[in-house]
Formats: sequence, C-alpha cells, structure tokens
Amino acid sequence: MLTMQEALARLTAYWTAQGCLTVQPMNTEVGAGTLNPATFLRVLGPEPWRVVYVEPSVRPDDSRYGENPNRLQTHTQLQVILKPDPGNPQELYLGSLTALGIDVTAHDVRFVEDNWASPALGAWGLGWEVWLDGLEITQFTYFQQAGGLNLDPPSVEITYGIERIVMALQNKQHFKEIEYSPGISYGEVFGQSEYEMSRYYLDDADVDANRRLLEIYAAEAQRLLDAGLPVPAHTYVLKCSQAFNVLDSRGAVSTADRAAEFARMRRLAGDVAKLWQARREELGHPLGLIGQAPPAEPAAAARTGDEPRTLVFEIGTEELPPSEARAAREELRRTITDGLGTTRLHHGDIQVLATPRRLIAVVAGVAAREEDHVRVVKGPKVAAAYDADGVPTKALQGFLQGQGATLAEVEEQDVKGARHVVVVRQEAGGAAPEVLAGVLAKIVSGLRSSKNMRWNDPQLSFSRPVRWLTALWGDDVVPVAVSTLAAGRTTRLLRTAASPVVPVASAETFLETLAANGILTDPEDRLTAIAGGATDLVRSAGVIDLAGEAALLNQIAYLVEAPTPLLGTFDPGYLSLPEPVLTSVMRKHQRYLPVRDAAGALLPMFVTVANGPVDVDLVRAGNEAVLRARYEDAAFFYRADRQTPLAAMLERLTRLTFTDKLGSMADRAGRIAALATALAGPLGLDSPTLRRAAELVKFDLGSQLVTEMTSLAGIMARDYALNAGESEAVARAVYESELPRNTGDDLPATTEGALLSLADRLDLFVGLAATVGLPTSSSDPFAVRRAVLGLVAVHRAHPDLAALSLDDALAAAASLQPVPVAADVLSACGVFLAKRFEQALIEEDRPLDRIRAVLPRYARPSLAVGLLDQLDSLVAADSDFVAVVAAIQRARRIVPQDTPAQYDPEVLKEPAEVALHEAVAATVADLRSAPEPDLVRFTAATGRIVAPIGDFFDDVFVMADDPTIRKARLGLLATVRDLGAGLLDWAELRL
Amino acid sequence: MLTMQEALARLTAYWTAQGCLTVQPMNTEVGAGTLNPATFLRVLGPEPWRVVYVEPSVRPDDSRYGENPNRLQTHTQLQVILKPDPGNPQELYLGSLTALGIDVTAHDVRFVEDNWASPALGAWGLGWEVWLDGLEITQFTYFQQAGGLNLDPPSVEITYGIERIVMALQNKQHFKEIEYSPGISYGEVFGQSEYEMSRYYLDDADVDANRRLLEIYAAEAQRLLDAGLPVPAHTYVLKCSQAFNVLDSRGAVSTADRAAEFARMRRLAGDVAKLWQARREELGHPLGLIGQAPPAEPAAAARTGDEPRTLVFEIGTEELPPSEARAAREELRRTITDGLGTTRLHHGDIQVLATPRRLIAVVAGVAAREEDHVRVVKGPKVAAAYDADGVPTKALQGFLQGQGATLAEVEEQDVKGARHVVVVRQEAGGAAPEVLAGVLAKIVSGLRSSKNMRWNDPQLSFSRPVRWLTALWGDDVVPVAVSTLAAGRTTRLLRTAASPVVPVASAETFLETLAANGILTDPEDRLTAIAGGATDLVRSAGVIDLAGEAALLNQIAYLVEAPTPLLGTFDPGYLSLPEPVLTSVMRKHQRYLPVRDAAGALLPMFVTVANGPVDVDLVRAGNEAVLRARYEDAAFFYRADRQTPLAAMLERLTRLTFTDKLGSMADRAGRIAALATALAGPLGLDSPTLRRAAELVKFDLGSQLVTEMTSLAGIMARDYALNAGESEAVARAVYESELPRNTGDDLPATTEGALLSLADRLDLFVGLAATVGLPTSSSDPFAVRRAVLGLVAVHRAHPDLAALSLDDALAAAASLQPVPVAADVLSACGVFLAKRFEQALIEEDRPLDRIRAVLPRYARPSLAVGLLDQLDSLVAADSDFVAVVAAIQRARRIVPQDTPAQYDPEVLKEPAEVALHEAVAATVADLRSAPEPDLVRFTAATGRIVAPIGDFFDDVFVMADDPTIRKARLGLLATVRDLGAGLLDWAELRL
Repeated sequence: MLTMQEALARLTAYWTAQGCLTVQPMNTEVGAGTLNPATFLRVLGPEPWRVVYVEPSVRPDDSRYGENPNRLQTHTQLQVILKPDPGNPQELYLGSLTALGIDVTAHDVRFVEDNWASPALGAWGLGWEVWLDGLEITQFTYFQQAGGLNLDPPSVEITYGIERIVMALQNKQHFKEIEYSPGISYGEVFGQSEYEMSRYYLDDADVDANRRLLEIYAAEAQRLLDAGLPVPAHTYVLKCSQAFNVLDSRGAVSTADRAAEFARMRRLAGDVAKLWQARREELGHPLGLIGQAPPAEPAAAARTGDEPRTLVFEIGTEELPPSEARAAREELRRTITDGLGTTRLHHGDIQVLATPRRLIAVVAGVAAREEDHVRVVKGPKVAAAYDADGVPTKALQGFLQGQGATLAEVEEQDVKGARHVVVVRQEAGGAAPEVLAGVLAKIVSGLRSSKNMRWNDPQLSFSRPVRWLTALWGDDVVPVAVSTLAAGRTTRLLRTAASPVVPVASAETFLETLAANGILTDPEDRLTAIAGGATDLVRSAGVIDLAGEAALLNQIAYLVEAPTPLLGTFDPGYLSLPEPVLTSVMRKHQRYLPVRDAAGALLPMFVTVANGPVDVDLVRAGNEAVLRARYEDAAFFYRADRQTPLAAMLERLTRLTFTDKLGSMADRAGRIAALATALAGPLGLDSPTLRRAAELVKFDLGSQLVTEMTSLAGIMARDYALNAGESEAVARAVYESELPRNTGDDLPATTEGALLSLADRLDLFVGLAATVGLPTSSSDPFAVRRAVLGLVAVHRAHPDLAALSLDDALAAAASLQPVPVAADVLSACGVFLAKRFEQALIEEDRPLDRIRAVLPRYARPSLAVGLLDQLDSLVAADSDFVAVVAAIQRARRIVPQDTPAQYDPEVLKEPAEVALHEAVAATVADLRSAPEPDLVRFTAATGRIVAPIGDFFDDVFVMADDPTIRKARLGLLATVRDLGAGLLDWAELRL
Repeated sequence: MLTMQEALARLTAYWTAQGCLTVQPMNTEVGAGTLNPATFLRVLGPEPWRVVYVEPSVRPDDSRYGENPNRLQTHTQLQVILKPDPGNPQELYLGSLTALGIDVTAHDVRFVEDNWASPALGAWGLGWEVWLDGLEITQFTYFQQAGGLNLDPPSVEITYGIERIVMALQNKQHFKEIEYSPGISYGEVFGQSEYEMSRYYLDDADVDANRRLLEIYAAEAQRLLDAGLPVPAHTYVLKCSQAFNVLDSRGAVSTADRAAEFARMRRLAGDVAKLWQARREELGHPLGLIGQAPPAEPAAAARTGDEPRTLVFEIGTEELPPSEARAAREELRRTITDGLGTTRLHHGDIQVLATPRRLIAVVAGVAAREEDHVRVVKGPKVAAAYDADGVPTKALQGFLQGQGATLAEVEEQDVKGARHVVVVRQEAGGAAPEVLAGVLAKIVSGLRSSKNMRWNDPQLSFSRPVRWLTALWGDDVVPVAVSTLAAGRTTRLLRTAASPVVPVASAETFLETLAANGILTDPEDRLTAIAGGATDLVRSAGVIDLAGEAALLNQIAYLVEAPTPLLGTFDPGYLSLPEPVLTSVMRKHQRYLPVRDAAGALLPMFVTVANGPVDVDLVRAGNEAVLRARYEDAAFFYRADRQTPLAAMLERLTRLTFTDKLGSMADRAGRIAALATALAGPLGLDSPTLRRAAELVKFDLGSQLVTEMTSLAGIMARDYALNAGESEAVARAVYESELPRNTGDDLPATTEGALLSLADRLDLFVGLAATVGLPTSSSDPFAVRRAVLGLVAVHRAHPDLAALSLDDALAAAASLQPVPVAADVLSACGVFLAKRFEQALIEEDRPLDRIRAVLPRYARPSLAVGLLDQLDSLVAADSDFVAVVAAIQRARRIVPQDTPAQYDPEVLKEPAEVALHEAVAATVADLRSAPEPDLVRFTAATGRIVAPIGDFFDDVFVMADDPTIRKARLGLLATVRDLGAGLLDWAELRL
C-alpha cells in the first residue's frame, strides 16, 4: 500500500525530475501553498521558476476536532509551480499520477472547470479541478494575477490535496485511517494535534489576544513595506491572515471588521507584490529572464490539386468550460463563414463541431483556387499624365513605376466623371491553402471567450490554452501559423490513448480518424450516446428523467469527448436524507444522473459518464466511494443541524457577511422581516404565520448543510423548521421565501411566502442598486436580474397581492436600508424593473405594441398582465374595443397635445357633436365609478361612443373658424382621447 | 555534483528506509529542529518514535545580511529522532553518509565529545559533534531530559547541518555558491530573503511590537496549559522563543529581562512537557509502548584447561570523552584488582589499556581454578543437637538436611566458647571462567563517569553507551552477562574496517589481533606514534613543541585508536592574524598541532591526526578547507573588530549576561574597576594607567572575535587597545587582568595588571558565593576554584601587594555586589580560600606541618609563603630556631591554655628562672619593634632564650606548692609560649 509519506516523496521526486526546485513549507501558518513566498512572490515578474513543496495548510474554520472524516484544520497540500507554462502541463500532471501508481488509462481523469480567485490577495486564475473517478484530487490553475499585478508570464499552479488522494488510493473512509507510514496511521501521528488545534481555533483562542496580534502584525507589515523589505513584510501579511482566520473561526469577526480586514490585506499584499517586483528589478533579476518562444514556422506550401476538396480546421485546446465550448462553436461558425466570404473561394456546406478539447470546422468542396478577377488601377488624370507634347509626365512615370507597368499597358477610363489613365490587371485567384491560411490564422488570433487567460503564448488569449492546430485542405496541410502555433497534419486523441498524437490522411478522413478512436465530435451525437447509454444502463431498474435533466445532460456532453456512461449504486440507507440533498450532490457536485422508479421515487443508484475506454469496474468503485463520502458528509451535517436550535442557526447569520455596506446576513434577514410585515399592513393581512416566518427567514444559511450546499437554502429551512416543531404553515412560508430560485422554478403558493419572497428580492435589489449599482451587461455577481424577474413572477402569480405596487414596495425597502437611497436610484430601479418585465413578456411572445401599452403598469405586474390578457381577447373578438382604440388614436392625432379635456357643452350645436357629447358624458360618468383598471368594463362603457364618433368625424369640421366653437370641439375630442388615460399607453397600440 | 536538494532527498530517503516517519518542518519559526513537536514532545514518554524531517532553523542573532560565508539567519537542519536507541545508531549514521556519496573508509569521520543542554527547555543530552575531515557536520546526542523530565527511554537525536555538509561536498567557500538545484545557486534562491530577514532582525524589527508579541504569546501559552492543551501551548512557547530572539538580536534584552524570560520559558516548556506526557497517558499511548530488551544469555560454560592462562576483558563503548576514558582506565585498574582480590584465583600482572572505544584489562597467568578451601559450617549447640538419649533432635536433623549432610559427617568444635556440632566442607575452588564472570559483570554494572547517561539498556549507565563485551580466559569465553550484554569471543575494529567485527583466537592473541588491525590499545603507544609521526612529518620545515603541546597531544591520543598523523598547510597570508588567534583555532577548535620554525615563529602548516587508514590526500584537503574557513571567519571578525571603537564594544557588554542575579558583563566590569581602584588606595597607588585600564577592563568580550573564541579574551584586548591608540601600559594592564587563565599560566607582571586580575577574581568569587554558593566537589561551572587559585598566585607573585589582605579585599568586593553578602558567606569564602591555598602548597610538596603553621596567614599569601620559605631554611640550618620551637612547644604543653602571658618578676628568685626572665624580657622588647612577621628576625631575637630555657627546665620545678610562685613561673612560660603568637601556628610544626 502506498503510504502517505511515500506519496509525498514520489510526487516530490517526480517534479524534481521535471526541473523543480524543492523547498520547504512556510515557517509561519498559511492557509494554502499559494501563500508561501515560493508561490506568491515568485509568480511575479519575468524570472523563471519551477518549484515543488509540501504545505501543511491551516484552515481554522475547517476545525472539526478530528471527528469529520474528510475535514481537517490542517491538511497537506503538495504545491507545484511551473513558470513559464511548459506547454504540456496537463501531460506532465498525468505523469505525476502515474508516478503515484495510478493507471491513468484505466481511471477516469478529468479536468473540470474551476476558476480560482482570492480577493484578499488580489489574485486569480483560470483552470480546473482534476477529477479522479469523480473525486476532486487537484486544483490546476493558470495563475493570471497576484497582488493585483498581471503575471507575465503566467504560471501553472498545481495543488494536490494529499489526504484526499491517499484516502482514495488506500480506500479509507476517515482521514485518521490513512496509513501514514508503514504500520502507523495518520490518526496516530496527527490525531491529538488535530483535536487540540481544533479546540484552540473553535473554543479556546483568546479573542482579544488575537485581535491585538492582528494589529501588531499589520503594523509590522506596513513598517517593513515602508522600509522597502518585501520578504519580511510578506511574512507579516501571512501572520495577519492567520490571526484573522483564528478570529473568524472563533466567531469574532463583525461584518465591518471583515470588510476592513480584507481591504487591508488586499492593500498590503498588493504593496508587497509591487515592492517585490521592484526589488527583483533592482537586483537585476537574479534568476534570469524567460526567453520568448519564437513564432512558429508555417508548414511548407502544399502541392495543390485542381479539384475542390474538403477543408478541415481543428483548434486544439485544453478542456474548455462547457458554456465556453458551446459559445466558441457558434463563434467559429460565424468567423469561418465570414472569413470564407472575404475570399473568392467557392465552397460547399460548413459544419462546425466541438468537444471540450477541440473546435472543428469542416467545409465541403472548397475550390482549389479563388476565381480570377480583373482589377483596374487608377492613375493620374489624363490631363496630368501627358504634357503639352503628349510626353508622359513625371506623375505618369511614377505611377507606372509603382505598378511595374509599361506605357504600352496604359488605358484610359472615366472615374467619377474624370478621365484617368489606368492599368488593367488580370489577377489570378490564390491557391486554396495559402488563401485559407490567412483566414484561419485570423480566426485563431481572434478567439475570445467571456473570461480570457494567458499562457505561454506571447499573443494569444482565450478561455483555456490553445495547444495545437490541424488544418488540411484535401491531402494538403494548410500552412496556418499563428504566434507560436503552426498547423500540421496530426491531431490528438485522448491523452491516455496508446498514441495520443496521430496523423490524419486527408481532410475527408479527419472525422473518421477521430470517430475510429472513440471521439464523438458532434455534441448532439454525444448527447444521444449519453442519454441512450444511461437509459440502457438503468432500464431494468428505473428511468432517467431525460427532459428534467436536460441542462445536466447538456453539460455532461461538454465534459467528455468519448462518453462512457456507467451505473453506480449507493447504500439505500442514504435515501433517508432529504431528496434534494441527494440530488443536489449528484447533479451539482458530481454531475451524476439520478435514477428514479416508475413512480418517480429516487433509487439508490446513479449514472456517471466517464471519458474514454476506462476500466469500468474501477471507475464505478471510485465514483461510488466519492458519493459515499459526500453523503456521509451530508448526513453528518444533517444530523448535526437537526440537533441545533433554530435560534443558534439564526445567531450564526451575524457572522455571515452579505456585503461590506449592507451588513451581515442577519441584518438582511431583519430587513426582509420588517419589509414583509410593512407590505402586509396595507393589504390588511395580520398573519401570525407571517410574523413567525419573518423571524426565521434565512435561518438555514446558518446551518452546516446549507453552508456546504447553498442551493439547499429554503429546502433545509422547511425540514429543520418542522423538525424544530414549527407549524407546517410557518415552515412552508420560510421555504417559499426562497422561491423562485431561478426562471421556471416553483413560485410561492401562500400569501405569506409570496410576501417574504418579494421582501427578500426587493431588499437585494434596492440595497445593491444603492451601493454597488445596477447590473451591467457583463456583470451581475449578485444575480440582481434573476431577483427582479422573481419579483415580477411572484407578483404575477399572486392576485391576492395585486393591490401592491412594486414602486411603493421599493420605496419601503429603500427606507429600511442601512445606507441612504437617493431618489434617482429608486427611479432607476423602476426603469430597470420595467425593462426586465418588458423583456420577460417579449420572451413569452406577446405582441410588442400591447406589451408597451401596458408597461406603465409595471409596478403591478399582475394588473399589467391582466390588461394584456384583456387586450388579447378584446382585439381577437374584434369588438367595439378596436373602434374605440381607433377613435382614441384619431382624437389623439387631431388634438394638440396640451389641449385640456374640457369644453363648454353649450357651445356645441351640431347634432353629431351633441350626440357625441352626450355619449362621452355618459361614458365619463360610467367610468368614474370604476375601482380598478379593466378593459372589458372600459369597452362596455365606451361602446356607446363608437357610432357617435363616426358621425362626428363625418359631419363636423373640428377646426371651425369661430375660436369658441373650435375650442369646444377640440375639448370634446380631448375628452375622448383621455377616456382611457392611465389605463394603457394607447399610443403604443398598433391594431 | 550532489545538489543541496538532492542531499536532503537522499538523507530523507535513507532514514525513511530505516523506519523513520517523514514529517514537515514546524509552521512557526523555530531555532532548531529540536523545538519541533516531532522532537520536543515525542521524545517524552514511553511510546516509540522514529522520524526524519527538514527544519529551516531561524537564528536572528546569526543574521549577517548574507555577507558572512558561513553564517545565516536561517540555516537548514535535517533532524532524525530514533526512539528507542536502536543499539547501532552510529553505524546507521555512517550509512547515511554513504547515502550522500561520502566514502567513509577514505574520509576521517570522528565522534568528538560535545554535550548539549538547553536550560530554557530544561533539556540536555550527551553525545558528539561528528567531524568529517575536521569539519563539524552533525550533532549526535543521546537525549536524556526534556522539559525537566527524564526521558525513559532516551532518544537518539541526529542533527545534520546541511549547508555546511553541502559546502564541503561541493567544495564551496560561501553558502551562496552552493548548488541548490541543478544550475541554481543557494544565493539565487535564498539570497534576497537572507538579506531582508537580516535587516529585519538586526535593524528593522519594532522592539515595542515584539515585546508586546512576547507577552501575548506567553499569556496564550499559559491559558492553553490551563485548558489542558499541550499542542497549541507548545506552539506559543515556540512563538515566545522567536519573539525573544528577535528582541535579543535587536539588542533590546536587558539582563533582568533575559533572566526572567528564560525562567518563564523554562517553566512553560516544563509544563507543556508534563501536560503532554499526562495526555498521552490518558489517550492510552496511541503509538504503543516500547518493549524492554530481554537480559542477554551468557555464553555456554567453557571447557576449562588446567594451566594458568591470560585473562582479557574488553568493554566496548561508543567514543568516550578523553578525560572520561582516562578516568575509566584508572577505575578499571582498581576494580579489576579489587575484584580479583575477592576471588581465590592466583594471577600475575594486571595491565589496563584504553582507547576512545574500549577499556581493556589483561591479566597474566590467571589460574584455572581457585584454590580449594575448607569451610566449617556451624550447627546447633551440642546440647541442643541430641536429646537425653543421644538421639539427634529436630534442630540437628534440620541442620543436616539444610547442608545435605549425613550424621556421619558431623563433628564437634568450640565456637566462641560454646560447643557446637559442625560440618566441615572441603570446598573446591571455582573454575576460572565462572569465577571471573561474576567479577567482570560487577565491574560493568558498576561503571560510572563524572556525567552519566542512559541508552537502550534498561540498567546500565555510563559516560557513553557500552555496546559489547569481550572476555576470554585463554581460549575460552568467560560467560559474563550484564543486563542486555553478553561477552563473546569477537572484538570490533574500526567501524570502517572491511570486517568491523572479528573473532579473537585466544586471550593471549587479543592485543595482537587489534594491533594487527592498526589499533594501538596503549595510550602511551599512541602518544609516541603521534608525537613521532608528527615530528617526522614536519622535520624538513620545522618543529613541534612537544612539551608545550603535551595537553593537546594527550587529548589527541584519546581521540583516535589508530593514529594517522598528516601534515596540512594554510595560506601564509593568515599569518598576519595574531598568533593566539591562529593557535587557538588549531588547538581548541580543530585539535591540530601548530608547527614552528627554529626561532619559534609559527609556520603556515599544521599536523592533524586522523583515525585509521584514510585517504591522506582527501583528508588533508578537507582539513585544509576547514582551517581556511575558520581563518577566514576569524579574519572577518578581526577586521570588523579593529574598525569598531572600544566604546562600542564596551557598550555591547550591557547585552552580555554574567548571571541572573549579578547582572550584565558591563555591571561586572564596573565592579572590577571600582574594586581595583579601591584596593589601590591603601597601597598609595594613584595610577592613570590603572584608571584607564579599569575603564576598559573586559571590553573585548564585546568584540566579535572573542565572542567566537572566548579563550582569546585579554589577548585581543591588548591588540585592539593598541590599535585604538591606547598606551602600551594600558593595553598591557587590560591584558594582564585576564591572567592567569589557568594553572601555570603567565601572571600579571605590572601592579596595575595584578590589581585588576585580583579584582576580577574577587568579584567572581564573592558574587557567586553569595548567589549560587561555593563550588562543590562535582560542580564548579564558573570555575571558581581556578579563580581562587589565581588570586593566590597573583598575590604570591606580587611583593608590591604584600600588604593587601585578601580578607579585606573580599569584604571590599562584597560591598560592591548588587546583592547583600552575609557575614557567614564572607567567612566561608575565607575558609575556602585557605583550603585552596593549602592544597596548592601541598601540590608543591611543601611539608604539611609547615603549611599548616603558616596557613593562618592565607589572607596574605605572599607573606605566608615568605614565612614558609624562612621556615624551610631555618629548619634546614638547624639553627636556634629549632630549639626555640621546641621551647615554645614545651611551654605550650606545660602551661594550661588559659594562662595569661604575664607574671610578677619579683616573685622569681631561682637563678635559672631569673635568667630566663631576663632573656625573655629582652626578647619581648626586641620583638615589639618588628614591623612585619619575619622568622629570621624572630629567631635572632629569641636566640637568647635557648640556653636559659634549657637551664630553667633542668633546674626549676614549675608546679611549686606556693601558688604565687607557681603562678609566676607559669606566667613566664606562657610568655615564652606566646613569643611568636600570631606569627605561626606553632602547634602545627613537627620538627
């Protein structure tokens, strides 16, 4: 059995053999290997650096007295930094697993999107968590920024979680059982320390002492920065961080403290980074400078045949995040279409495919050459081309020289009405490979994703590194070269294939080559294979809800190139956990498909989809073990939570920050409670259920299980509330306060739940608008858009709340914020809300004119939608309504805008105008008693003017010479115009 | 080339293969690997533990900005703990050197006594520094106590100094040049950190901040102890230690602080250790318990011949300190002689030999059996043995049964006047092997040295572990078994021999066997070989002062078993350093013999003595490199010191502690100055030289060179004083203040030097007597005995100071102490001084009676010695003096003790008594004018009583009946008795 110390030794030896320095862990407490100066400082600046080291990583918050099987206050990281990116870090990483004795061809090793950011360090990077049979064993990051500085070059950071890897390799259920060295367990070596340090961090650390330590450390860090000494300053920043973490685990960090501390640490870390970089510069970069990779040589020009051939172009990448791969596929479709359009190459259909590791364009029948064409080159005007003697002037001579033409080639043509000398060129079209090379190169250099990174290429930037290009036109390589990449005639298979790089005979056989090696390049094919395979696997036992799991299936289809579905089981005992816990773990954490029986009940099994031809039994066993550990964890938290009084969980909310300026989650819960109660008042709702539910709202954010899986918020609240003896109604209202969690989710059914849900979203909306501003197109970290859509959806679903104006509610929410909310912020919120409402209605395929007509009613969405529905039926019924609208619109067009809707009826003498006056007067009287906007009633009331107004327009000349009469007639029409004022924006209707 | 990281990896791998756990360095700053809980806590208690780890060891005081080639604020230790002692840790250690690629058969690897103690940790152990060709590369310790607790079992602690080893292996002159990893130097990796952390420790650390840290850490440690959590408490003790070290390196620790801090750390560390031990007990010792080694089986009984044969007995040990080996040899001579004396074995001469690794007794002609003898066993009294009928009583029957005798064997004998039944046994003597086995076993179990340790043996205790026994009588093994050791017929050669363990044919060939393998068992032989070999090596160039180097030669003779002298050279440029610097380094640090030319000038060469058949060129090169580094270091300090003002060095004395209660070295220097001046006053000495020298006294303890090599104190003072422009006289006086440094050393020649020297020693003597007490037979850590002998020697050598009474001087010194000195302490000092003086005179072979006669004059040793000299010549001259002494002593015997020396001359009538009276009266008058005690003058004055007193005793009956006459006669004799009162203790003289 591979002991833990042997695992550390092997990894260290492996990376040392790859040219890494071996250094020691930091000799002050750090939370992660990233904080060690061997990473944090060395990734800065232009010097090369390769290092491997072990880092006992202290996380006071993870203290569990050694009782939790998977959580330790100090866990062991093995940290590797490769600077610059060697170009094949994933392959090197797989080599390290082999060094551990892991057969990577038998196991399912995957790179699953996981980006990393540490705001306190001003650091971030893009990369993956590496999965071994579903178990996260490594964090793999292309480090892009540290201390707020761009990293040039970026570094590859590989962080192994050693306890976790060793537990898997040794098949242990608890970290204490790890065989640390031959015959000695982890618990025997570290158990006492784990317990005692947990005691310190959770119970016994002196809060006041650690506060004082924090201040002293920060002051020392600042002094050392002032003294120009980044190394000791960094040490003190680390000590700050540890003292802060201790305070945090002791529950002694207020919201204000946390914000201030993070800001201070970010500033100190940034100053350390800047100072270090400056010092290295002063020292002349003792480790030297990294040379820039030379541009790639394009392939030799191809032998070109004459027949049209297929073009295949493959952009090989490291594992793209599913959403990025999907978007990149669409973008490639656009760019290759447009790119070919700029050439004069005839071509057939364009097919674009994608997997996590490649983007492929296949273009049928691309002509061997561009069409020839004629080009006229304009020279000087004829008058300026020859002198009086007909001798060519210097101007003409210069033109000819520039064109390499002779006088004999000169012709004359009219250009924009002036006579010019010209040279006419018969230009041959370019050969396909050369022409394509330019187009394809531009596509590669133009690749962008929503979040881009740098790697060892000096020019390219994309979601993940681009590692190879394959470009063939028929049998020939298209000589594409972009920065350090040149296209060739090889493609790559799975990294674990016997030959990971294979030649491709021709463009026409390219897809076959991949398919023959199990790679399904078409996402639809993969989806089919996954859905079909999974269904087959579970057929005898149950079903998979393919429609319900569509989003997950779509994601899985972009996590694998060669899907290998396999069925695993778990202990039915875990079915006693709430179902959402089980399915959340499966879907969100593991990307497993849940399996149900015919009645829809969960079965103790799951389908996971491995990549490539793995050892199915081995991978199944691995995944089962992972799920077991996760369920064990969840069960542990669940049991603990159910033994925790609700008040204790509520108390923990004071320790959870909402935002710097908006206070803790407890503050937010308090505002939601106050707001829900305030909104209930005018509705005449006096509900004990609401009052109790408002007291409890968000309490489950203080539970361990929800802390672990935030998607369970609300769900666990209901469970824990019932468990604590709260009424069914209260439990339901607290649950419903979290609804809807996303578009299409359930909505609160009860009034109490709806009020809490609205209050929650209103608080979020107004508070953030007043502090960080409204979301922009690219940034909406707090999901404000989703909250606003939720507001609208809840209001629409609740006729019982129809009287509630969201504008009033926003104002009420604003009055509860801990910061002032300016009037313009509130009105901007209204505009934002209206826009989201309009967008939602558009997406329901409602006619835009009718949407716009009711949009002034955005503050009462249920009312607005009611009007919209009435509009639809009234228009469809082709009733009087249409005529009324026409009348109103006609009146609107005739009457000057500022004409008041009033007139002296005595002045009206013509029968048609008298008739209209009478109809209008009756209608006005009728409408005056209408309590609520109602188009049906409106139509009924206004129906009586349809005939009179027709007559009026036929018989009466409005713009009479007599100003008194004119004024009265205009006043009458203005009254017609305003009959429905405030009911709709009549001007928008296009009937 | 072996890189540093590879060296660490190889050592780690080697020890892991020996069953060591690999753990990580401590994640808080520590000064040494010993502080890591993997050592400090794990050596406690009965659980087994084997561990290897790297420890970057932070020594703020060693900060040198990276400029010193051999000194770093953070150096790298590799630490190994073996618990229990595996029995062969030295062999395992040599294996680790082989793993580093060091050919231990070619190099000179030696274990040189170096004990370790950390008072702040309540920890100590015995062991060695390991030398590789003269370079200290490892500390090897049998850890005996930690946190004030006895370690049972003890642990073996091996600490490698990695930078030093790698510099040697890579042949680098500066640590920055070390190849840390392929192509990357140590300086490139750590240079900036070394500079910046030095800046922090020496210049930039905030003193107030670190003081506050120290207090917070100590308080946390105490709180955690109170909470029963030794692990986090220990962490805070380490943090205390680091904060203290930072303060110290910033020069911010006062004497009072230091004492208090050490006491606090000792207490905290002790409490941590006790608490840890208790917690492990509570936890049921998770790592199990160490089994006790079973007692050894003695060898099978020998076939015994009849002829007397040689006995050889070898006790094999690990390297004994030279002084202990020498003492143990003498002790073995005594114990074997006595032991054989308790047997009835005839034997011939006893020869006792010793090397660092063995104690050998060779006894010629030991008889095959003890002499037979007759034993009479006493039974009951005859009266009780038989009943009235002559039938044996139960008493007799019981006696016979007990003796296994029959009634026929019973005899009767008188025992102490009573008639008893007896049984007479003819007892055969025991066979030599069995008899010897008991004697030899007792010798081994009785082994003791002045400082003893424990190892893996459950019973034995000695200066270093006893590892094997060889015991042969002729051809036969003597079946000795002691605890876990049983004697056999093998012995051990050098550890690096091809066969380190060899059989021995017979006792008679034992010494031959060792000699044939190059081991010289007789210290005299080794001395001869070393002296002769060294002299031969240097013959062409110069000489070695064999007499002058006798002490060193004697030490070397006990550092090697197979002396291999070899000649090395050094750069003549270093001859510009003061000669004592050069020779101190050679002798004290390296045990090299200096070489001089015919005129006595030092030559740039040295002789070192390797152990065994090494590769001479390799070992020479290694030793030369070591000496170069040491001289380079010394030159570095010397240059730096000579650029430092004397005032700055004096200032540093405030940072050097003398003792907790007696203040800093600056305090002590101030007292010496004040005392010297005070003593000069009564002598009428008003010397500007003295005043200035007193200001400077001890200043060179603040120099870097003397800090490194304290034996140069005084010598460097003279050099630096002259360099700083002080007068020759002042420089000399400061130098002389340190004289004599040991018995037989030079004495101060000037009065000023002598006064300072006396003041120095008086201050030490009185201060320590008043605080820690006078030295005991086993403990004299401050070398008070030597100081007191120095006092006497200086006084004797200075007739100019004859008037000075050391009793008065002690009182003056007492008045200057920072603590009260009680009267009984002062008088105890007088007694102690007198005893040392007496002992010194005895060692000069002066007659004891005369010594005792002058001893009352101990306070003025020069006077006492003058009297002693007069005594010698007066006695030798057989003058009147002898008669006077006889007269005085006769008078003393006759006259009752309390008789006053007065009488009424008028009462005396007899001619003889009148004559005596007149002679006595003249003598008294004569003596009255004597200014100083002077026996010659006394003899001249008293000569006139010689004849009269003879007549008096012949003619006069002292005890006359008439009380008046009797009283006068007794008064006359009492006057004779007291003629020399106070001059000598006449009663002591035995002439």
